[in-house]
Formats: sequence, structure tokens, C-alpha cells
Amino acid sequence: MNIHGTPYRTVWFADDLVRIIDQRLLPWHFQILDLPTTTHVAHAILDMAVRGAGCIGATAAYGMALAAREAASSPDPTAALIAKADELNCRPTAVNLAWALKRQLDHLLPLPPSTWPENALTEANRIADEDAAACAAIGQHGLSLIQDIASRKPSGQPVNILTHCNAGWLAFVDHGSATAPIYAAHAAGIPVHVWVDETRPRNQGARLTAWELAHQNIPHTVIADNTGGHLMQHGLVDLVITGADRVTRSGDVANKIGTYLKALAARDNNLPFYVALPTSTFDWTLTDGLAQIPIEARSSDELIWMDGPDASGTLHHIRLIPETSPTANHAFDVTPSRLITGLITEHGILPANEKAIATLQPPAA
Amino acid sequence: MNIHGTPYRTVWFADDLVRIIDQRLLPWHFQILDLPTTTHVAHAILDMAVRGAGCIGATAAYGMALAAREAASSPDPTAALIAKADELNCRPTAVNLAWALKRQLDHLLPLPPSTWPENALTEANRIADEDAAACAAIGQHGLSLIQDIASRKPSGQPVNILTHCNAGWLAFVDHGSATAPIYAAHAAGIPVHVWVDETRPRNQGARLTAWELAHQNIPHTVIADNTGGHLMQHGLVDLVITGADRVTRSGDVANKIGTYLKALAARDNNLPFYVALPTSTFDWTLTDGLAQIPIEARSSDELIWMDGPDASGTLHHIRLIPETSPTANHAFDVTPSRLITGLITEHGILPANEKAIATLQPPAA
Repeated sequence: MNIHGTPYRTVWFADDLVRIIDQRLLPWHFQILDLPTTTHVAHAILDMAVRGAGCIGATAAYGMALAAREAASSPDPTAALIAKADELNCRPTAVNLAWALKRQLDHLLPLPPSTWPENALTEANRIADEDAAACAAIGQHGLSLIQDIASRKPSGQPVNILTHCNAGWLAFVDHGSATAPIYAAHAAGIPVHVWVDETRPRNQGARLTAWELAHQNIPHTVIADNTGGHLMQHGLVDLVITGADRVTRSGDVANKIGTYLKALAARDNNLPFYVALPTSTFDWTLTDGLAQIPIEARSSDELIWMDGPDASGTLHHIRLIPETSPTANHAFDVTPSRLITGLITEHGILPANEKAIATLQPPAA
Repeated sequence: MNIHGTPYRTVWFADDLVRIIDQRLLPWHFQILDLPTTTHVAHAILDMAVRGAGCIGATAAYGMALAAREAASSPDPTAALIAKADELNCRPTAVNLAWALKRQLDHLLPLPPSTWPENALTEANRIADEDAAACAAIGQHGLSLIQDIASRKPSGQPVNILTHCNAGWLAFVDHGSATAPIYAAHAAGIPVHVWVDETRPRNQGARLTAWELAHQNIPHTVIADNTGGHLMQHGLVDLVITGADRVTRSGDVANKIGTYLKALAARDNNLPFYVALPTSTFDWTLTDGLAQIPIEARSSDELIWMDGPDASGTLHHIRLIPETSPTANHAFDVTPSRLITGLITEHGILPANEKAIATLQPPAA
């Protein structure tokens, strides 16, 4: 992804620091944040300076490069490394986080601690490269869906795609999951238009997806989260593509709160509802998303307070809900597999059922 | 409704002025706005200083008391009165507005213009009194639903009711439609808890419904609009009650954008979804809500900008969406009758179908 003409990933390692784009400041400020210790990385994940399933997985993997260095000089390096991996495992819903940490531990623990820093960094780079490559492949597979729809529309009419939250390149290392097919279609010259759900309470749609799409010159319209059903009823949506934070082996999808409502509306209007994900987002241990996927309850401050610039550009932090009213902030919901038309993975598009998903399971899992 | 110990209606006539509670300033400021002319009243409706189906109907009826006085002294009083009714008919979706204006014109036009001001005021008071009485009756009918649910729950456990937007007393002359059963249940000693949808983009739930419920000491929790489906999946909602801006003779319901999504979620979770409305909200001329009810497209500024106090209490108006992204603001959607468990009216609870609704049709319509 190019920002102001410079190619960026969302997370990388340089000068013994983990470096990220601080997503809390977007779209108002583009700023790189340097993370010098494991604790800084954990805080960045918890506070959503980095967010998105693939991105927090890669960030945690790079965090393990710092953890490896810190642990290697400790009296009990193994215990220290495991404790630091625990510290990084600070959000419960996206499985990529736990997956990347386990992969690093499995890789490092058999090796001598003195080799951990170098090996951890190599493995983190590998995880990041794999994430970017998987997203690029998702884009190519998803492109075929958009091409199919475009071929059935009058020439020149855009394919209208609705997406929820940000499953863009900011949510991964590059390309994104839900946005990858959109970027691929745009690059292939297919006219697309994206309905961007604002995505309360953190407004990742309005703040991140809209910002990404504007930088890519992709036609889009930001809407309130309440709007998608109405648009579908009136023929203004051709396709829904969302990302995922965790997908069970049976095809149930945990994703940003509100995804389930859009899946219901797509079903009620006979519209295709696709979920795009790298296979690192599958949780091979779970079969019942509603019962088994932990849903993060985050601080109500995310619902109560909002920041943005006034007309003169000065940023303010304002209250949206009166102090006299309690609030709750459930961060994710689970869309049952029965509502999902298909899963777009780096290995191709498959139906959201156990038999199809099992074909992707790595032998080691 | 008591505010700081003083009983209020949302709109009344005093000292030759239409007086309203300025809903744009709530919950941060409680302020009465004086409207001296028809044009002031029309602007207050258009700018949503008053909003809500019943409330804008009653406000327009009072506006006709000003219009009657202005028109009576014009060279062509009849043409002037009709033109002023047209000016007041400035929002398209809620049928109560057109209904109240037509009722005033039907009442006034056969009378001598010199008698219009007095007769218009009498009729406006009658419309306001009928609205308040209808909402009180809706409360008593809806109470039976809540009692039924409470009787099936373990003693002392609250009945969890989800509502969208504000169909409270601020949306009518008093009591509200969707909130009337809640207020009645609370008064009857039944424990209730209300999930209040924030209701983007204007946040009528977070700003108005939450404020009303807090003033009535009714337990409630404000949530993002994305949350209701997740709560229903986890058994945290017993009943949904919303208001309506226009209901067809076949039972299709136009209401605040996002209502349809909650109706889909209620259906998917086998939960009762009720719509509360006075019969003045029926549009007896329409049979297909999706095709026939006009949906107001409002300024995108409502989505882009938000106001609220910072931590020190200073109000700011901030941008939520970057200038580089287009936006759209569809204000209402239509929930098909097939998703509605029942309609709570002042005459009782009935199924959302043409046969049942026809029993309520006034002979003159």
C-alpha cells in the first residue's frame, strides 16, 4: 500500500524496534509508532494502536522478537519467553494473535536461547510475508466473484460491495482480506463502488476503510451501520464481503459486532455474503462459534467518547452519551455458517461447512 | 412527563406562540423554544428541533393555529392557508404530519376565515390530547405483553426490552409509543431493563431515549446499533418494541433506519418484535411499504458531524468522517409485515395484516 507515494506495511522491524502505523490517530494523522519492548507491543495491541486479525498476529510475532531478546538474558529464559508470550496474548477474539504466538514458541523453545532473537525475527518476517501473500491470493480468488457479477450487469455499471469494519490492508500486513478482492477488481479495470459501514463504536469503517479506499481512488460511500438492510432491499448492494477474527472448523464466523445483522439482511434479500480470511484465522479446535468463541467486552469509553477535528481542524474528545446512562460495548458477534455463502481464502473459495474447511487443515494441527 | 419536577408536554401553545422542547440540545441542555410564525414551526420540524411521528403531527397542528391567524388577514385566505399547510408538510416519511395538516384543513376550510385562529387552536389541542391519550392506552395494552413475559421469568429478573431510536414521550405529546408499555410496566412494579440502540446517525437513542429513561429511573443500557443481534443470540433480549413513522394498511412499517435489521434478528432468534403506534400513524392508502413509502434522504452532515461536551463540559462540533469520503444518509427503512409479531395500538394489540388492520380504519378515510 502506498501512502503519499511511499510503500508501507502495517508493521515491520527496524533498528531493534517494532514499528507500526498508529491506527488510533487515523484518518486525522498518519504517524509511525516505535515499540521498544514487549510491554509496549502488548499495550499497542490492547489499546488498538494496531488492530485487525492479521495485523495483530504479525505485530505479536514481531513482539516475540523483542521478547526473545529480553528473555534470552533472563535467569530462566524458557519461563520468561512463555510469560512474555502470555503478556502479548492480550485480546481474546482474533485467533491469529494466539496462533502467531504459539508458532513462535513452537519454533523458538527447542532452540538455544542465545539464538532466539535472530530466529524470532526471521520467523516474524516469515509470518508477515505469509500474511501479505495470503491476502494477495485472497484478492485474486475474490476477483472472480466480482468479475462474475460485473459480467451480469449493464456495461459500466459498478459492482456495489458492502463491507463492515476494516478488513483492509490496515487490518493485515498488506492488501487486506475483505478489501483484497476490491483492490484486485479495481486494478483489473472493473468498476466497483463500496458501501462502507461506519462501524460503531470504534468507527473503523469511517476512519480506516474509508481512508484506505480514498487513498486507492476507489469509489465509496460511508453509511451508518443501520443502513445496509435498506440498501439491500432496494437493489443497491450486489455483494457483501467482510473479514473475520476467528472462524470455527464448522464455518461460524466471529467478526466485528454487527456483522451478523448484515448477514441476516443479505440472506433476506438473496444476496451473496462472503467472508475473506487467511487460513491462519481458522480455529481448528472449535465447532460451535456461538457457544465457544470468546467475545471481548471492551471499555464503554469506546462507545461514550469520540474524537475528531472541529471545523477549524482542532481535535476534540467529546461525550456522545450522557453520564446518567449505563453503556455496554460488546466488540464482536458470531455469524452462523448457515448465513454465509462462502469463504474466500488464499487457497480458493469454499463453502462454510466442516467438510470443505477440513481440506485446508494443516497436518500438524 | 416530569422534568426536574415540572410536568411537560413536548409541544403546547401559549402567549400566541407554539412552544416546544428543543430536542437538538438534549441531553446536554433542556431549553424551551418559542415559535412565533408558521415558518418558524416548519423550520423546527425540518431541522428536527421537534421530531417523532406524533410530536411533529401535533406541532404541525399547532403551527396551523399560527397559519390560521396569518392566512385569515390575507387577500385570499383559503389559498394562503393551503400554502401554509404545504410549508408545514416538510418531512415526507411520518404520515402523522400530513394527517394532522389535512385534519386541520378539513376542519377549517368550511368555516369563515375570521373563526380560523380560534378553531385551529381548539383542533390542535384536541389532536394533542388525543395523541397523549392514545399513547397512554398503548401503554396499558403493551403492559399485558410485558406482564406475560415477566410471569414466565424467575421472580425479580427484569424483562429485557430492546428499542431503537426514540419512540418515547419526546416523539409524541406525552408517554411515547414504544416506551409507553415500559413506563406502564415500571409503574406497575414489574422489573424492566431497556437496551437502548444509540441510533446513528442522529443518536436519538443515546441522546433522547436514554435521557427519558434516566429521568424515569428505569434501568437501561445504551449500546451501539450493531449490538442487538448478538444480545438476542445470547438470550439477553426478551422483547423488541419500536415505534413507527408510517404503517401501511398491510402492516409494513417505516421507522428509523436500522429497524429492519433488528426485526430480522428477532425473527432469527424467535423473539417477539412489536411495533407501537397510534392509529394516526396508519396510511390507509398504501399496501406495499417497500415500494410506496417515501424514504427521506437527509443531509449527510448528520452523519459526518457530531456534537457533545468535552471532559470539562464545553460543547464541540466534530467531524467523524474524513472529507475525502462521500457519505449518504437514508433516514428510514421499511420492515415488512411478515417480520412483525404484532402492532400495539390504542385500541389493542393486533397482528400486522390487512384484515386485522382494516378493523381500525375510520369510516371517513
